[in-house]
Amino acid sequence: MSMNLSDPTVGLAWLAFGAGIISLIVAFLFLGNVLKQDSGTPRMKELSDAIFEGAMAFLNRQYKSLAPIVAIIFLIMLVVGWVNPHLLMEVKDASIDFDSVKTKLAIPVSFLVGAIASAIAGYAGMVSTTKSNARTTHAARTGLQPALTIAFRGGAVMGLSVAGLGLAGVSGLYLLFGHPAIINSFAFGASAVALFARIGGGIYTKAADVGADLVGKVEAGIPEDDPRNPAVIADNVGDNVGDTAGMGADLFESYAATAIAAMVIGNKVLGLAGVLFPLLIGAIGIIASIVSTAFVRMSSEDGNPQAALNMGLYGTNIITAVAGYFLAASLFGDNALGIFIGIIAGLLTNVAVGYITELYTSYHKRPAQEIAEASETGPATNIIKGLAVGLKSTVYPVLVIVIAIWVSYFFAENSEAGLGIYGIAMAAMGMLSTAGMVVAIDSFGPVADNAGGIAEMAELGPEVRKNTDKLDAVGNTTAAVAKGFAIGSAALTALALFTAYAESAGLTETGINVLEPIVIIGLFIGATVPFLVASYAMEAVGRAAFEMIAEVRRQFREIPGLMEGKAKPDYARCVDISTAAAIKEMVAPGLVAIGTPVVVGFLLGPLALGAVLAGGTASGVLLALFMANAGGAWDNAKKYIETGKLGGKGSEPHKAAVVGDTVGDPFKDTAGPAMNPLIKVMGTISLILAPIIAKINLFNM
Amino acid sequence: MSMNLSDPTVGLAWLAFGAGIISLIVAFLFLGNVLKQDSGTPRMKELSDAIFEGAMAFLNRQYKSLAPIVAIIFLIMLVVGWVNPHLLMEVKDASIDFDSVKTKLAIPVSFLVGAIASAIAGYAGMVSTTKSNARTTHAARTGLQPALTIAFRGGAVMGLSVAGLGLAGVSGLYLLFGHPAIINSFAFGASAVALFARIGGGIYTKAADVGADLVGKVEAGIPEDDPRNPAVIADNVGDNVGDTAGMGADLFESYAATAIAAMVIGNKVLGLAGVLFPLLIGAIGIIASIVSTAFVRMSSEDGNPQAALNMGLYGTNIITAVAGYFLAASLFGDNALGIFIGIIAGLLTNVAVGYITELYTSYHKRPAQEIAEASETGPATNIIKGLAVGLKSTVYPVLVIVIAIWVSYFFAENSEAGLGIYGIAMAAMGMLSTAGMVVAIDSFGPVADNAGGIAEMAELGPEVRKNTDKLDAVGNTTAAVAKGFAIGSAALTALALFTAYAESAGLTETGINVLEPIVIIGLFIGATVPFLVASYAMEAVGRAAFEMIAEVRRQFREIPGLMEGKAKPDYARCVDISTAAAIKEMVAPGLVAIGTPVVVGFLLGPLALGAVLAGGTASGVLLALFMANAGGAWDNAKKYIETGKLGGKGSEPHKAAVVGDTVGDPFKDTAGPAMNPLIKVMGTISLILAPIIAKINLFNM
Repeated sequence: MSMNLSDPTVGLAWLAFGAGIISLIVAFLFLGNVLKQDSGTPRMKELSDAIFEGAMAFLNRQYKSLAPIVAIIFLIMLVVGWVNPHLLMEVKDASIDFDSVKTKLAIPVSFLVGAIASAIAGYAGMVSTTKSNARTTHAARTGLQPALTIAFRGGAVMGLSVAGLGLAGVSGLYLLFGHPAIINSFAFGASAVALFARIGGGIYTKAADVGADLVGKVEAGIPEDDPRNPAVIADNVGDNVGDTAGMGADLFESYAATAIAAMVIGNKVLGLAGVLFPLLIGAIGIIASIVSTAFVRMSSEDGNPQAALNMGLYGTNIITAVAGYFLAASLFGDNALGIFIGIIAGLLTNVAVGYITELYTSYHKRPAQEIAEASETGPATNIIKGLAVGLKSTVYPVLVIVIAIWVSYFFAENSEAGLGIYGIAMAAMGMLSTAGMVVAIDSFGPVADNAGGIAEMAELGPEVRKNTDKLDAVGNTTAAVAKGFAIGSAALTALALFTAYAESAGLTETGINVLEPIVIIGLFIGATVPFLVASYAMEAVGRAAFEMIAEVRRQFREIPGLMEGKAKPDYARCVDISTAAAIKEMVAPGLVAIGTPVVVGFLLGPLALGAVLAGGTASGVLLALFMANAGGAWDNAKKYIETGKLGGKGSEPHKAAVVGDTVGDPFKDTAGPAMNPLIKVMGTISLILAPIIAKINLFNM
Repeated sequence: MSMNLSDPTVGLAWLAFGAGIISLIVAFLFLGNVLKQDSGTPRMKELSDAIFEGAMAFLNRQYKSLAPIVAIIFLIMLVVGWVNPHLLMEVKDASIDFDSVKTKLAIPVSFLVGAIASAIAGYAGMVSTTKSNARTTHAARTGLQPALTIAFRGGAVMGLSVAGLGLAGVSGLYLLFGHPAIINSFAFGASAVALFARIGGGIYTKAADVGADLVGKVEAGIPEDDPRNPAVIADNVGDNVGDTAGMGADLFESYAATAIAAMVIGNKVLGLAGVLFPLLIGAIGIIASIVSTAFVRMSSEDGNPQAALNMGLYGTNIITAVAGYFLAASLFGDNALGIFIGIIAGLLTNVAVGYITELYTSYHKRPAQEIAEASETGPATNIIKGLAVGLKSTVYPVLVIVIAIWVSYFFAENSEAGLGIYGIAMAAMGMLSTAGMVVAIDSFGPVADNAGGIAEMAELGPEVRKNTDKLDAVGNTTAAVAKGFAIGSAALTALALFTAYAESAGLTETGINVLEPIVIIGLFIGATVPFLVASYAMEAVGRAAFEMIAEVRRQFREIPGLMEGKAKPDYARCVDISTAAAIKEMVAPGLVAIGTPVVVGFLLGPLALGAVLAGGTASGVLLALFMANAGGAWDNAKKYIETGKLGGKGSEPHKAAVVGDTVGDPFKDTAGPAMNPLIKVMGTISLILAPIIAKINLFNM
């Protein structure tokens, strides 16, 4: 049902909007607090500025490249919607006046807001993390606790921006246009940006990383983060571009898409309460995240930063669960428990997938240690073992996800027939409600990493480096956990989009029957797309790294006195190369991701496209888990050897493990992360296209 | 409809049975012809005998391990079928007397015949290829043409046995029991054997290969196939165990499953003619294969053996197509063309997938060359590039397969509503009708490979080695093409099994609707199984190779005079190790393959199991293509460098390429090939379980 603005319960939507705004205000306060800190010596400032400028240059260029695409899509939506709004929305709801200007504007405006909000979140997060790095380093000169605080607040700006813009955007557009089904293009706007942010960011970070490592560490024999390395700034920029901007855009997209899909489903099965509940769960998650930032502190200077971050995460989960129960009880009466179990399933999925990720990637556990042991017989056995670990690491996360689907469906459906699908949507929403804290903890990673780099480049003492190293080690774990979170939430989001698509394309009655040949055909095509996109991403890193290597070699060769530390390298040139390569190389995989649903939809029709989404989601999630975990395990197998095991650094096993780590880099940081926006963008574009391809397609199968 | 034995058209089934027997007779004649040849010097005989004995030892032990499993399944089927035959067969056909002893015996007897026939084909093929090797070497002392003839005839015994036993088995059981739907356990018998033959064979061959290479070539510095290497006989046995026995069992399974599924579908949509047509297409394919063996000859001693083998393949395809047209015309009247197009789609799929495989793996083409070029920056970039090539190599084969599905369905369905599914079955049957020739050409590979090995070990002159090398090079290409054929046919077979399962489980009316959560859950579980089985297979190779390496090192250390050629190594011990490891390691992946459908079926019910089959097929086919093509491309990238490019043998790029080749070994020869029987055995066991799980399951979803 459409919203009646005189209805008092609508005030609850304003509450959600308000929570989103509060989140943004807190983010702004955190940023101000970070900026107030001293960023240390002139050398530290200079390095931090270089990283900041490199990051901004990348973002500017990326958004500038995306702007015309966004503008064209906006115009197409505007024109098509003006001529015949039913080609863009198929909502059977008498309360919607399709002839009103406001309704006609809903789709294009929501799309634009989604794209712009994602860009703003990206800027906010990147400003914050790149401004926090030197300040964290400086704080580390006095102790671990102050450094932790700054690094976490730097990350929290991103987290709270993502969640705040997501919730404020969805609830604001809902309040403006009055029906969730006509604002789903907000998610598509977020998707389009996320796709390119993830792919471009992934290519950037690994091109810089591989270029810096291969020439710097291997050929020139200088250590990591050595200021003489021309690619060192690009490498540090890359950490932010990949982990902060990429991850933030990814989760913003999941947040937007899940919230709207949940509202659309809720509207159908429960009316207004079903629409408002996801918004209010989002509000609870945001408040829980803000409150829990206070828990992120160590008991003493010798404390464990990991435990401090965990406290923040646990706090968020527990507050959300408890408040969520009371909210459900007050809105749904007898159905409250059935729906609430979905929220719990989502929160537990998050915890379980994070735990499994750690199990397969941490060097305290057997899988990574076994990869390290396999390195004793050379790089080939290291690679074989790593691939095997990655392949089998998919099993438990998939089981967790399907159990979450089953549990959330079963209890909701048993509570009242027809509620099951809403239960699944609640699992997704429950998981994503904690996104503010998860992104905060994840964005903490690049800040800590950069802080260490700056300590090294500014030649601060080993005491400082010891503190930043402690934070950096924690950052590696939180990054792995966040990756699991991103994959799990992408899977649930893609399923929610799939359901919404089927509804919009009119497939709910007939179903998507795998026994029909066209559905099998769609399933196969969909399952192949992630393989192709992963291949593009990996080859792109290879090509971009190749250019970077050539440039770094050139600088070492042509700049006199560089190796002796008497001359400065041309950092900007390397930043440019990474930027240009990332922008260029993101086009092909992006076109495949967006083009496949368009071509299949108009050629083979809505049924085939539905199957493409199902096949693409299954295969995309599996490849994402495979690549993320194999990459993480290779990385930590190397680190395990570097702790002195199996001959330690410089030994033959270590050399073999470096090969594995290098292979794992584009796996875990480029191709793997690209799978999340891939499966979601296929869903959001299909959802937008659903009404039109249901009417117009070549073979009508 | 059930068969009426007084119907004159039933004579056509006898015709098919006769063609199967003729195939076996010709195979027997070829074997006799091969055995009549001289196997050369006493040293050559000795080596050939050692390989023969090793191969037999493996087969004996493997079948001995399988015998109790087969016996138990046979007994369960017998008892369950006796108590209530409807738990094993759900055939709505009044002509079947479920109380008759004959009907009750149909399922257990067909299963036993399938398992035994697969074992017989394995023995026949292995005897033939291991008896042909020294004889080929000896013939190569006089010229290329006589060597080609013996090697091809040695392989043709396997090809004609597979096709002959398949067709005679299916048509014989049909004539005996009178209805195709009650003999589908023939395919399950073949499946059970194929699964273990593929996995066990794959582990055997790579454990021996890696063990022989790593210690022999790398550590001891002796060349390939050096008689001082203790693992050299095991390595040569492995070529037969993997490529001949594994591939043969794989295609026997596809043949059996496809023929029966096609007959079941044909019975439903077209009556008796629909049952007989697949059998007769099989008969045509066999006769075409036999006739075309005559085309496998070179125009002169300088001719190209590849061209000779291609002539055999083209001949088979063309004869099958032309004769198939007349057969269709005489049986189906107006529908002939619609059905015939399915046959053509199948034949063309074969050609197209073979061509694409060559495109991605041959070192005359860019992908393999690019991997070689990536080796210039070390093993990591070689691996990244190889993985990227493998990932993208999945796209075109999948497109070919889905186009074949679409075309064969579309024209048959347009010809008469309801015929579409039969059209798809005909594509599968058309493809498989040429199996006799395809397996012959594939089994030619290990004969040629062994012949070269024996030439080396028996220290014959370079002239002989030159001839065997030419044959070996051709064998590598035909192996790649056969792999594509095996994957393509496995995909179509799995789909045919999936359709038959749905029919038997009573899902045809309701469909398998991906919008239902339980179907999505099944899809995810199914898609994960190939990842897990691939992981097991790769780790098994690692463990088995580790044991082999230890043993080879021990022999070099403990046997005095071995390196000087004064003492003989203990070949048998290495053969034992490979055998024992393969038997032990095939258990876990085998249990996953067979256990998943059983657990999902009884726990979640028939709908979830149907989804498992769909998800498993899509993911299994993609992983099979990925691993086969990546492995082939790595192999040929190394060979490309060995032709003298990029520094040639012994250079740094070559060393990097060796790493890629080693990673590719378990990819292309163990994990990849295991995917085919995996997706088929999941289908055949589901088909057997369908009636029982439709009645008995825990959650009934």
